[in-house]
Amino acid sequence: MNVTIRGRSRHFRTVAFDAPSNSVQLIEQRLLPHTFQVVSLANYRQTACAIKDMVVRGAGAIGATAAYGLAQGVRTFRGRNLEKFAKHTEIVFQTLKSARPTAVDPVNAMNQVLRVMTSGETVEQRQSLALAAAEEFANEDVQHCTELGRHGMKLIRSGMNILTHCNAGWLAFVDIGSATAPLYAAQAAGKSFHVYCDETRPRSQGATLTAWELAQQKISHQIIADNAAGHFMQRGKIDLVIVGSDRTLGRTGEVANKIGTYTKAVLAKRHGIPFYVAIPLSTIDWQMRSGFDIPIEERAESEVLGAWGITSRGRREYIRVANPGSGACNPGFDVTPAELITGIITPAGIFKPAELWSHRKQLGFV
Amino acid sequence: MNVTIRGRSRHFRTVAFDAPSNSVQLIEQRLLPHTFQVVSLANYRQTACAIKDMVVRGAGAIGATAAYGLAQGVRTFRGRNLEKFAKHTEIVFQTLKSARPTAVDPVNAMNQVLRVMTSGETVEQRQSLALAAAEEFANEDVQHCTELGRHGMKLIRSGMNILTHCNAGWLAFVDIGSATAPLYAAQAAGKSFHVYCDETRPRSQGATLTAWELAQQKISHQIIADNAAGHFMQRGKIDLVIVGSDRTLGRTGEVANKIGTYTKAVLAKRHGIPFYVAIPLSTIDWQMRSGFDIPIEERAESEVLGAWGITSRGRREYIRVANPGSGACNPGFDVTPAELITGIITPAGIFKPAELWSHRKQLGFV
Repeated sequence: MNVTIRGRSRHFRTVAFDAPSNSVQLIEQRLLPHTFQVVSLANYRQTACAIKDMVVRGAGAIGATAAYGLAQGVRTFRGRNLEKFAKHTEIVFQTLKSARPTAVDPVNAMNQVLRVMTSGETVEQRQSLALAAAEEFANEDVQHCTELGRHGMKLIRSGMNILTHCNAGWLAFVDIGSATAPLYAAQAAGKSFHVYCDETRPRSQGATLTAWELAQQKISHQIIADNAAGHFMQRGKIDLVIVGSDRTLGRTGEVANKIGTYTKAVLAKRHGIPFYVAIPLSTIDWQMRSGFDIPIEERAESEVLGAWGITSRGRREYIRVANPGSGACNPGFDVTPAELITGIITPAGIFKPAELWSHRKQLGFV
Repeated sequence: MNVTIRGRSRHFRTVAFDAPSNSVQLIEQRLLPHTFQVVSLANYRQTACAIKDMVVRGAGAIGATAAYGLAQGVRTFRGRNLEKFAKHTEIVFQTLKSARPTAVDPVNAMNQVLRVMTSGETVEQRQSLALAAAEEFANEDVQHCTELGRHGMKLIRSGMNILTHCNAGWLAFVDIGSATAPLYAAQAAGKSFHVYCDETRPRSQGATLTAWELAQQKISHQIIADNAAGHFMQRGKIDLVIVGSDRTLGRTGEVANKIGTYTKAVLAKRHGIPFYVAIPLSTIDWQMRSGFDIPIEERAESEVLGAWGITSRGRREYIRVANPGSGACNPGFDVTPAELITGIITPAGIFKPAELWSHRKQLGFV
């Protein structure tokens, strides 16, 4: 998407690769929304660190970063010995994999690169194929989000007020995003609408990342406390809800997403407001049989007990908000049952959650 | 309630009066939970400023502060001329009233003091009656909260997990509080239970004031993001919800309270969890016929766009969290319909919201 820097608009991807310098280029997301900076990572170890330290986050974005990181790593191998090359490749793979040990996207992305590579007969061919495969992975991510947006924009009419939660935006993918894709596509089609961004405590990705994205695209928006959406729904001020998903169960249509998503789905149901989940196909879990089996990450108490931001002196600081003697409980995700979800927006079209399983071939069931 | 200072527990009221020095004593709530300090206000102008600047907040607490402030002001009059005394009294009254022009509690409290005063025949008698009436107002506030707690504690069984929202605690009253009264009474009766405090963005009164109160009373508690309560209800981790109210409609049973209350009521209904509202009788509005007529205060955007807390250097600071270019929408309250409320806990007993009107005589209908 476009970013305006010193008054000039320029296109950026969240993740890119510069072949001449063999470097991975990432938007430094930890500095957003207060500073926009692209960091250049000179070798695969630096790329692994960037994944680990959350310079980049979001399923699509870390998948593409790992794919590029693998290509970056294998391209530095010197020699013609295929066996030594395979050993080197394995070290690169493991280094990148261990950067986010519980995430499945980097591994899936790197496996896709490995499969393509093996068709090469020489080290040089394999190095070249690795980069081509990583580029293809990133381009596919963009293409999927584009198609998702094309389907999702049909839900948006001019004058609508749309609620979104957390950041399933282009910063979480290579470009365009999932929950934001219908917004960007609708805007490009000339529709005008207003977006309410849940601030999305405790990490505030709605107030920081989604609001930043929408501001860059000049989409009308306001940030609201997570507490306020129910009131707005009651007063008829929200017409549509679109959120992303970290894992969608193909068998049941249940959706795991950022904590608070379930609450918004319950409220939308009460008020008869359409509630949509936008997902890339890689997010569908075809194996798991119940949402109660999805592990819910328990995150650090400090996230709930305070906040990160910019002081009046312009310094980025963490402040403790809560009573010093008190602890917190901080589940990172919740699970929304299929009955609360109007539809699931995918690159292959919009489906009722209960229909995912019967359309599994079309949806890339593996 | 008791506050522990340097290892020693001591009883405090939120608002008190020291007759020898003619000063109003307030807990400085803006410094909580990080610093506990009692400020002494030497004259009625200082007391009015303390109300205006929110050293003290909460319906019961600002009512008692204004009552004491009126007594404090009239006690400084020198002379025997009743007409001049009446003029002086009027100045004191208006000064205190204008400190929070939209609040009804200071005016009601001061009118109660005025009614008692007029039975005195001399200036000296009226001065003495004013203080007695202010003391009685404060004691009545405590007594009402005590009775409310006695009724409400019957809802609490040992082992329960109880959710509360915002701060309807003793800091919002002279002592004991409304939503917290059943907790303190149940604890005194030997029941053990756990409280989840919604942090209550954007002003975080749950994470700061309620958590501080519960920590002082050694009641087991944890702070949660406002987004997390739905997940906990879904997983069977919440047995009871108790909140306060800023205005309860006697005719319909609708409840206006801190933004986010409605959301919790909708979630509780879905999960069959009892949802109670604890109120002093002064909160009941017998005139208004629809919750949609309750004016919803639109508060400053900065509350949503950032947070107040303590930096690593121990300084109290506001930080900007949100994207600098984005605005916010910040309704301060929402309205919960009667159908979502299991019962209303009052000093006169627990009533179904729809029963308030038929019990109006018992509930102080005026």
